[in-house]
Amino acid sequence: MTPTNLQLDREGRLRHFLSIEGLNRPLLTEILDTAERFTSVGNQAAKKVPLLRGKTIANLFFEPSTRTRTTFDLAEKRLSADVLNININTSATTKGETLLDTLQNLTAMQIDLFVVRHGASGAAHFIAQHVPESVSVINAGDGRHAHPTQAMLDMFTMRRHKSDFTRLRVAIIGDVMHSRVARSQIHALNMLGCPEIRVIAPNTLCPAHVETLGVHFTNQMERGLDGADVVIMLRLQNERMNGANLPSKDEYFHFYGLTEQRLQYAAEDAIIMHPGPMNRGVEIESSVADSGHSVILQQVTNGIAVRMAVLSMATQRSGQEALS
Amino acid sequence: MTPTNLQLDREGRLRHFLSIEGLNRPLLTEILDTAERFTSVGNQAAKKVPLLRGKTIANLFFEPSTRTRTTFDLAEKRLSADVLNININTSATTKGETLLDTLQNLTAMQIDLFVVRHGASGAAHFIAQHVPESVSVINAGDGRHAHPTQAMLDMFTMRRHKSDFTRLRVAIIGDVMHSRVARSQIHALNMLGCPEIRVIAPNTLCPAHVETLGVHFTNQMERGLDGADVVIMLRLQNERMNGANLPSKDEYFHFYGLTEQRLQYAAEDAIIMHPGPMNRGVEIESSVADSGHSVILQQVTNGIAVRMAVLSMATQRSGQEALS
Amino acid sequence: MTPTNLQLDREGRLRHFLSIEGLNRPLLTEILDTAERFTSVGNQAAKKVPLLRGKTIANLFFEPSTRTRTTFDLAEKRLSADVLNININTSATTKGETLLDTLQNLTAMQIDLFVVRHGASGAAHFIAQHVPESVSVINAGDGRHAHPTQAMLDMFTMRRHKSDFTRLRVAIIGDVMHSRVARSQIHALNMLGCPEIRVIAPNTLCPAHVETLGVHFTNQMERGLDGADVVIMLRLQNERMNGANLPSKDEYFHFYGLTEQRLQYAAEDAIIMHPGPMNRGVEIESSVADSGHSVILQQVTNGIAVRMAVLSMATQRSGQEALS
Repeated sequence: MTPTNLQLDREGRLRHFLSIEGLNRPLLTEILDTAERFTSVGNQAAKKVPLLRGKTIANLFFEPSTRTRTTFDLAEKRLSADVLNININTSATTKGETLLDTLQNLTAMQIDLFVVRHGASGAAHFIAQHVPESVSVINAGDGRHAHPTQAMLDMFTMRRHKSDFTRLRVAIIGDVMHSRVARSQIHALNMLGCPEIRVIAPNTLCPAHVETLGVHFTNQMERGLDGADVVIMLRLQNERMNGANLPSKDEYFHFYGLTEQRLQYAAEDAIIMHPGPMNRGVEIESSVADSGHSVILQQVTNGIAVRMAVLSMATQRSGQEALS
Repeated sequence: MTPTNLQLDREGRLRHFLSIEGLNRPLLTEILDTAERFTSVGNQAAKKVPLLRGKTIANLFFEPSTRTRTTFDLAEKRLSADVLNININTSATTKGETLLDTLQNLTAMQIDLFVVRHGASGAAHFIAQHVPESVSVINAGDGRHAHPTQAMLDMFTMRRHKSDFTRLRVAIIGDVMHSRVARSQIHALNMLGCPEIRVIAPNTLCPAHVETLGVHFTNQMERGLDGADVVIMLRLQNERMNGANLPSKDEYFHFYGLTEQRLQYAAEDAIIMHPGPMNRGVEIESSVADSGHSVILQQVTNGIAVRMAVLSMATQRSGQEALS
Repeated sequence: MTPTNLQLDREGRLRHFLSIEGLNRPLLTEILDTAERFTSVGNQAAKKVPLLRGKTIANLFFEPSTRTRTTFDLAEKRLSADVLNININTSATTKGETLLDTLQNLTAMQIDLFVVRHGASGAAHFIAQHVPESVSVINAGDGRHAHPTQAMLDMFTMRRHKSDFTRLRVAIIGDVMHSRVARSQIHALNMLGCPEIRVIAPNTLCPAHVETLGVHFTNQMERGLDGADVVIMLRLQNERMNGANLPSKDEYFHFYGLTEQRLQYAAEDAIIMHPGPMNRGVEIESSVADSGHSVILQQVTNGIAVRMAVLSMATQRSGQEALS
């Protein structure tokens, strides 16, 4: 844990949350434990705590999003922060201002934390490198690179159902090549001690050298699902279908759709996860998505608690008070 | 009042507000009385009460709206709720998610109440049937079916000026066939004991069998206005004009526009209402809209109090605390 | 200070803020002094004061804006007001409602203050003439006419660095003809006693009879910059470039771009200002924009304090309590 780690402050506390890489197991566990405490807020009659009162948070979304943006928005409001939702497509950059000028203007407005989604890998890192000492950046998805709060809400959901990561067999199924979610999940599972991570995909959607990430690859559903405790389905992006990589939706479902029949290969108490939004009948059979194995909606609920945890950890460092 | 009434909880209190039908006179009167207490909030220096602090309300607008959405937004903020404004056209459904999946995701975010506007009749009912026990739904207009908060703000405005519904003659003028506002007004007036409801419209804009709603129909303005205590003008939708149903704006104004001259047929102290936005010179003469008879802007002010009443009644049931 | 001055109430306090013209030096100084007190709010851990709690502010933007709208939004939230952001292009006016009807509807919603940006000169005045006694209007830019909060944040920034307006030489450079910012700056500088205001522009971008505003005109950068204490660059609108008024961006930069070399004509401790967003390499050299002379980002920070000052002064008149 050197000072060159952009994500940590000098005392080793979370300053930015950009990727799972670079964070150690105690810090990931601290995020999960903090989130655990925030779950009760969502169950209270008044779902609000005054922790971030008077803090200003800007949600900078360069890519459209509903689920992620809305759950960040709710997490921020339930922490009593002041929230700015800025859709950059329709914003200052249309007047020809550079990203850096836009950013410097926003930091001049004394914003405490940026939540950033961007189509380019590395965008959140770039922004984190250019904000003042007192400002934090949370990556809400950058290109194909990382989506660390999604990975942590997935870990949180797994831990609630399976408790011990060191005994889990996890299968990740689908378009791993283009998925920032899968990348972040794999890093988190490895760091939390998961001994067996399997990637199941058609050869055309599997990243080259995937084994170097510490996973096992197979293009056979039955083999990959065998005895799995956790089954993570990825969303098949529409733009991949009917393209060079895939013959058709129907054929994808035929070979890689999660059906009731195939689910029988997994452990009897397996849980099924999906980051949403689902393509029913493409990557997952409707009856499986709505079955007792599915924890897909719990993931959404947990996402708010995990985001509250990360937001409060990043903004409540002691150095935060000293504005640059 | 059976448990099959979707709008009421087991104790007979307002849970959803979907339509006037199914609610009895005491409940409608309770809404009006509660709104009466909320009118003072708008006149305070600090227009805010902490009643819904920590509650999350999502405004789901599948159709554009200014007046209704803004007054709901203000009502929610003045009750201190956390507010999510979700425009569904530009949202997750563009990724091909079904309405039901979108809804389940939002309820997984522990939203307490949905305000729904939708172009399809029955949409708010459908949503109310699919939310957990603790969640409420308010219909902000569904297709040609109902717009119950508009009807209640109209009732509220009438009661402030005329006090006794059982002695009122009310004339509703215009495109009753396509109007969810008129439908809800007629049901509310009947339930509150109004003895004489008249519908005035060209034959082509009058619903078939309109008399079964308990109203009198005429296509003659002078006859319909004769002695009326309340004159409700409906908005003529642009898409109706110059179409099969109507020859032209000018001809509509010639036969059905509310002019100063025609107003003389009504009672001397008649009040004039309009749900807005008005087409001046089409359904109403400008001088009439701005005259002392007009209570059109009072309707807007009263709309906030009525919406505060409905929002607080629906979210403050005792069962609300127990999240499913 | 006669009662016919729309901007002041009967006791001579700021009611509307529409233009610098009509306000005297004590009032402008009061704005600057009040802003000075608000700067500390932005440096607190909790950037929030309860001054406007329960007040409703509507930001009516008929023209797109990022910087101005966002800083007003932040200023309002940091004062604890309830904020409505209304983009009028996509709003009720699409249903054919007149501006006046839209406005009357909004005032019927008991909004306390409107912040208005509009493409037509005089729009904010028009709105101020039609709101009830208790309501205030702040002009956030109207056509080519005025942008008074921008001018005041510029004055604030100058005063922080130069303290005494009566000894300043100020150069305003660029498209003065189309600039509401420049118009408001010139009025404010004159009222605050600045003895020497210079306008530097190509002849085609200089308003006719500019000298009647109390400024000196030159089309020579070197002459205009000579000994200047404050250098204000204006944004060159894209639509002006390559048009009838200007041959090309490159040629504009060649003659009127602020370069390091040209800056040497100014005073040694000159400050450089720009209302943003900047066109780097068109009106200003990048190294100059980022140099120690530049106070461009301080302008953004100061803009929030100045807007908090104006918002609180306008809404905290004693007559405010009595709603019409």
